[in-house]
Amino acid sequence: MNADPKFLSTHATVDAAAVAPLPNSRKVYVAGSRPDLRVPMREIHQSDTPASFGFEPNPPVWVYDTSGPYTDPQASIDIRSGLACPRAGWIRERGDTEALAGPTSAYGLERLNDPKLAELRFQLHRKPRRALPGRNVTQMHYARQGIVTPEMEFVAIRENLRRQEYLRTLADAGPTGQRMAALLGRQHPGQSFGASIPAEITPEFVRDEIARGRAILPANINHPESEPMIIGRNFLVKINANIGNSAVTSSIGEEVEKMTWAIRWGGDTVMDLSTGKHIHETREWIIRNSPVPIGTVPLYQALEKVHGKAEELTWEIYRDTLIEQAEQGVDYFTIHAGVRLPFVPMTANRLTGIVSRGGSIMAKWCLAHHKESFLYTRFDEICEIMKAYDVAFSLGDGLRPGSIYDANDEAQLAELKTLGELTQIAWRHDVQTMIEGPGHVPLHMVKENMDLQLEQCHEAPFYTLGPLTTDIAPGYDHITSGIGAANIGWYGTAMLCYVTPKEHLGLPDKNDVKDGIITYKIAAHAADLAKGHPGAQIRDNALSKARFEFRWADQFNLGLDPDKARAFHDETLPKESSKVAHFCSMCGPHFCSMKITQEVRDYAARQGIAEPGAALAQGMQVKAVEFMRRGAELYHKE
Amino acid sequence: MNADPKFLSTHATVDAAAVAPLPNSRKVYVAGSRPDLRVPMREIHQSDTPASFGFEPNPPVWVYDTSGPYTDPQASIDIRSGLACPRAGWIRERGDTEALAGPTSAYGLERLNDPKLAELRFQLHRKPRRALPGRNVTQMHYARQGIVTPEMEFVAIRENLRRQEYLRTLADAGPTGQRMAALLGRQHPGQSFGASIPAEITPEFVRDEIARGRAILPANINHPESEPMIIGRNFLVKINANIGNSAVTSSIGEEVEKMTWAIRWGGDTVMDLSTGKHIHETREWIIRNSPVPIGTVPLYQALEKVHGKAEELTWEIYRDTLIEQAEQGVDYFTIHAGVRLPFVPMTANRLTGIVSRGGSIMAKWCLAHHKESFLYTRFDEICEIMKAYDVAFSLGDGLRPGSIYDANDEAQLAELKTLGELTQIAWRHDVQTMIEGPGHVPLHMVKENMDLQLEQCHEAPFYTLGPLTTDIAPGYDHITSGIGAANIGWYGTAMLCYVTPKEHLGLPDKNDVKDGIITYKIAAHAADLAKGHPGAQIRDNALSKARFEFRWADQFNLGLDPDKARAFHDETLPKESSKVAHFCSMCGPHFCSMKITQEVRDYAARQGIAEPGAALAQGMQVKAVEFMRRGAELYHKE
Repeated sequence: MNADPKFLSTHATVDAAAVAPLPNSRKVYVAGSRPDLRVPMREIHQSDTPASFGFEPNPPVWVYDTSGPYTDPQASIDIRSGLACPRAGWIRERGDTEALAGPTSAYGLERLNDPKLAELRFQLHRKPRRALPGRNVTQMHYARQGIVTPEMEFVAIRENLRRQEYLRTLADAGPTGQRMAALLGRQHPGQSFGASIPAEITPEFVRDEIARGRAILPANINHPESEPMIIGRNFLVKINANIGNSAVTSSIGEEVEKMTWAIRWGGDTVMDLSTGKHIHETREWIIRNSPVPIGTVPLYQALEKVHGKAEELTWEIYRDTLIEQAEQGVDYFTIHAGVRLPFVPMTANRLTGIVSRGGSIMAKWCLAHHKESFLYTRFDEICEIMKAYDVAFSLGDGLRPGSIYDANDEAQLAELKTLGELTQIAWRHDVQTMIEGPGHVPLHMVKENMDLQLEQCHEAPFYTLGPLTTDIAPGYDHITSGIGAANIGWYGTAMLCYVTPKEHLGLPDKNDVKDGIITYKIAAHAADLAKGHPGAQIRDNALSKARFEFRWADQFNLGLDPDKARAFHDETLPKESSKVAHFCSMCGPHFCSMKITQEVRDYAARQGIAEPGAALAQGMQVKAVEFMRRGAELYHKE
Repeated sequence: MNADPKFLSTHATVDAAAVAPLPNSRKVYVAGSRPDLRVPMREIHQSDTPASFGFEPNPPVWVYDTSGPYTDPQASIDIRSGLACPRAGWIRERGDTEALAGPTSAYGLERLNDPKLAELRFQLHRKPRRALPGRNVTQMHYARQGIVTPEMEFVAIRENLRRQEYLRTLADAGPTGQRMAALLGRQHPGQSFGASIPAEITPEFVRDEIARGRAILPANINHPESEPMIIGRNFLVKINANIGNSAVTSSIGEEVEKMTWAIRWGGDTVMDLSTGKHIHETREWIIRNSPVPIGTVPLYQALEKVHGKAEELTWEIYRDTLIEQAEQGVDYFTIHAGVRLPFVPMTANRLTGIVSRGGSIMAKWCLAHHKESFLYTRFDEICEIMKAYDVAFSLGDGLRPGSIYDANDEAQLAELKTLGELTQIAWRHDVQTMIEGPGHVPLHMVKENMDLQLEQCHEAPFYTLGPLTTDIAPGYDHITSGIGAANIGWYGTAMLCYVTPKEHLGLPDKNDVKDGIITYKIAAHAADLAKGHPGAQIRDNALSKARFEFRWADQFNLGLDPDKARAFHDETLPKESSKVAHFCSMCGPHFCSMKITQEVRDYAARQGIAEPGAALAQGMQVKAVEFMRRGAELYHKE
C-alpha cells in the first residue's frame, strides 16, 4: 500500500531523531547584504583543554549545514504546511515571472481534480509560477547579464563558512588565540589538477563560475523553500542522496522521512526516484518540505503513464511530465538525451548491457521505432521549458558501465561526447547543466573519466555515481564506490551521488541512507583536503586536537556522526567518567601513548622546543588567511 | 576477568558460524610436486544461465582461501589440540634445526612451571625448535642459496589460483567454453607504477623475489601449523587483522574466536596485540590454532614485565621476550628500531605527538636515559635471534602521523630513512624484512609515502595502516582508511593493516573485525585490479554475469560476504522465489532495465552484432592465457 493516510492526517512532524539539534551544536545564521538573506551554519561547541595538557579554551567550530529548519529549535515544523520560503521574495522582486491560475500540465490538473486523491494530496495554496513570455529566469541567464542574485550571495557566504572572520577573531585574541588560529588554520597545500579555487569565495566569483558554466545553482522558481547551494569544481564537493519508493515497497511518509534524515546527515541534494503509484503526490510532499534542491528522472514517471511500455512513450507525454514536475518545483532533471540510436548496438557486446533505467527505456524506444531519441531531437524544446522555471539539466549517463568489464567502453565514451555537444546547446539557452558519470570503473581508469569529461563537456560540473571500483562486494557497495568517489572528487568531480549498502540488492531503509551519506561525506571531505580547499582542514585539526587531549565528547561531536562515535565508546567504557578519562580502551589506564607523548613534549619544551603552532604563531601577520597560505611553506620549513 | 576456564575446559570447537563452509563453496587442494604439498583454495559453484538469457553452464570460480582447515568438513577441529602441522616435515627434513629440551627464555620457563596457570595453559607436547649453532633458517637465506623450499612452491601455486588451467580447460570445451574463457579471462590492462608482476607465478620467481628482499614469506619454524603465504608488491595484495585483549576487556576464548573469524573472511595474517594479563597463554592458544602467520609487538609484553614503566625496560628483558615469543612460533615481530633519540624532539611540534604505542614507549625510554634506543644499538643481536627461528622483521613506524596535520612530517620521514638503513643490516643477516607505514595522510600525499618507501627501503615490502584520509569520521575509520588503503595498495603497498569501525573509540568485537576485514578485502582487490594483477578480474566478471542474468544466489555467493548480501535481499524480497525472479526491488516486476537490455541484445544479434565474448572468441588462440594478454588490445579495438 503506497498511500499512508494515518501518517498524512496525524503525523505533522518528522520523527524526533531527525529534528533534534546535533550534540553541542547550535544553528546560527550569517547575515548577508539584506535582512532576508540569512545563511545557516552549524556551530559546534567545545570544552576547554584540561589542565594536564595546559588549560586553554577551545573555540567553537563552524561547519556546513544542510539540515535546514529541522535542526532549528526556533522553527516550528509541520510537514502538512511545508517549510517557509526564504527565496519567495527574491523570485517575486525580479519581476520576470507570473503566478499561473494553476498547473498547466494536463496530468497536474488531472491529479489536482481527482477527489480520490484528496487525502493523499499536500494542501498547497500557492499557485505555480512561470517566466513571463520571452523571459529567461535561470541563474545562468542572470549571471551572464552580470547580475549577482541573492542566491549567488547566499552560496558565497555559505561556502566560506566564516573562515576568515573565524581565524581573524581568534588571532586578535592575544598569543593563545594566535597559536590556536595558526594551529587550526594550518593546512597542507593540495593538488587540484588545474581547478581554480580562490582563497575566499566572493559573490562575483560565484556569478562568474555560473556564467561560464563551471558551476550550477539549482533553484527552480517553484521551490522557494530551498536554501541555495552550488555545484562546481571550484567549490566544496557536494553529495546527493537518492530516495524514492518503488512498485514493491514504501510509502509517502517514509520517503519524506528519508529526505529529512538524508539532509540531517549531510545530503546536499536529494533525488526522488519513485517509480510506484502516487509519484506526483509523493514528490509534492517531498519538495514542500525540502530545504535542499530536489532532482528527478521525469522519464520514470512518463513510463508509468504508458503503463511501463517504453515503445508507447511520446514526446507529448514526456513534455507534459516535464511541465508537471517543473511547476511542482523540481530543481534538476536527469535527462538521458545522449542515448542515441546509433550508440545502442555498441552495448550488445557488453557483459552487463545497459544498466541505467533511463538509458534502457530510451534504447528500447529507439529500437522499437528505429528512430533517433526524441530527447535528442527535441532538445531545444526541452531547453525552452527548463529556462521558464530554472530547472537545471543533469545530462544522464544512460550508457554508463554496469560492471568493471564494461568500464570506459565505446558506448560510454560515445555518449559522453554527445553530452558535451548537448551542453553547448543548453548553454546557448542559458540553461544550467551538469553531466552524470559512471558507474563501475577500476581505480586506475577513474581519472580518464574525469579528464575526458572536462575536455569534452567544457568544464560543466561532473556528477558521478561512485564509481564502484570492484564488483565483488554486494552488501558493501557504499565502500566499493566510496573509494572511487573520493578519487574522482579529488580529480575534479563536483557532486558525488551516494551508493548505499543495499545497492544491487534492495531499496535502502533509513540506516542504509545514513551509511551511504556518511560514507560520501567522508569521500567528499577527503577530496576537499586533497584539492587543498581553503579551510577544509580546520575540522580535522580541531577533532585531532580534541582526540589528543582526551576531550572525548568534543571528539564525538566534531565528527560526522556523534551518535555512533559515542555509542561505540560506550560499548567498551560505558561510564560517563570515561568520557573525561585520560586513557582509552586501546591501552587502558595502565599505559597510554598519549600520556607518554605529553611527557615527550614537556621534555622538548624544557629543551626550548616550541609547542604545536607556536613556531607558526611567532612573527606571523595578523591576517588569519595569511597563516593558511603560509602554512604550507612553514610546514616544509619546519 | 581475562581467563575463561569454562571456554578452555569445555569449548573444544570454535563457534559453528566460523567453521561452516561458505554457501555453495567447497574446499579444494591443489597438489604440488610432493604428496605433502597440498594448497587450499575455495571453489564457488554456480548455477546455469536461465533459458531466457540463453542457457549455458557456468563454471565454478576459484578464490584464494585463508580460512584454513576450519572450512574443511574433512578436518576435525579441536582447539585444545590445535591444528595439524603441514610444515613440520619440511622443517625437519632441512636438518638445520634441533628440538630444544624446552623453552630457553626465562619467562617462558616461568610460565610453564607456574601451577596456577595449569587451567589456562595450552597443552603443547611438542618441544620448541631452534637453528643448529651457526645455521640460518630463514626463507631468505635458502632463497639466496638458490634453494626453492616447499613453502615457496606452495605460495607460487596459491598465488596462481589455477588460473591458466582453469581458462585452458574452459577453452578446450568447445565454442561455448571458449566464449566463457574469453569473457571471464578478459581484463583491463593495469597501471602498476613499475611493479614486475609476471603472467604466472613460478616457484623460481618466488625464490628470486624473496632473495632480493622484495617479498617475505613469514614462516617461523615453531609455527608448523601455518599455510605459507607471501607478502610482496608483485603478488596479490594482502591484509592483516589486529586482535588482542587489553587491560580493560576480553578473554583468551574471545581472541581465539576473533582469529578464526578474521581468517574466515579473508585475513591473510593476524597480529595479536594483547596488552592485558596472560599475554603468553593467549598467544599460545592463538598460534596453535592459526593457519595464517601471526605477528606481535614484543615491546608490549616487555612493558608488562616492568609493570608499564617504560624507563625500566632493559635489553635483557626485551631479548628474553623475543626468544620467548620466537619459541612459541610468532612469524613476524613489529620492532620500532627507527625511533631514535635525535628524532624524538622532532615530534614536539606535532598536533598529536607520538600515537604509536611502541613508538611512545621507546621515546620515553630514550628520554628517561638520554640514550640511543637499545632496539637500534642492539639491532645486530636482534637479527641473530630472528634468523635462528625465521622470524621476519616488521620494522615499526613508531613516529607515524596520528592526524592529517602531522602527515609526512620531518619525524616520520627521518624514521623511514632509518628503517631503510636497518633493512640493509637485516638483509646482511638474510633476515626477512617488511616496513610499516602510516597512519593519517590526505589522499594527495599518499603516493609520496609509497615513492619514498620504495626508494629509501630498497623495495622491501611496505605494510601500511590505512592510511586514514581524514580525521573527521570516528566510528567510520574503516572507510576513511579503506580509501587510503586502496590507493596505497595500487601504488605498490604489499599488505594493508585493517582498521575497524572502533578505531580511536574502543576494542573491536567480532562484527567490527568482519567490517574491517571486508573493507580491506575490497581495498586490496581494488588495488589488484588497478595494478592489473593477472586474473584478478575473473571474480568480478563472473559476479557481474550472474548479476546480469538474475542468478541471485550466485551473485551472493561470489561476493565477499554472501551472508550479508542474501540478508539484504531478503529484507526487500524475502520469498525464495525472488531469488530466481527476473527483476529486482529497484525497478520491480513492472519494469526492468536488465530485461530491456536483453531485448537490445536480441535486436543487435539480429543485426549480426556478436554477443559478449564472441568477438574475442572468434579466431582466438587455444591458450587461454593468450586471451588475457590480448584482452587489452581487443578491448581497445572493439
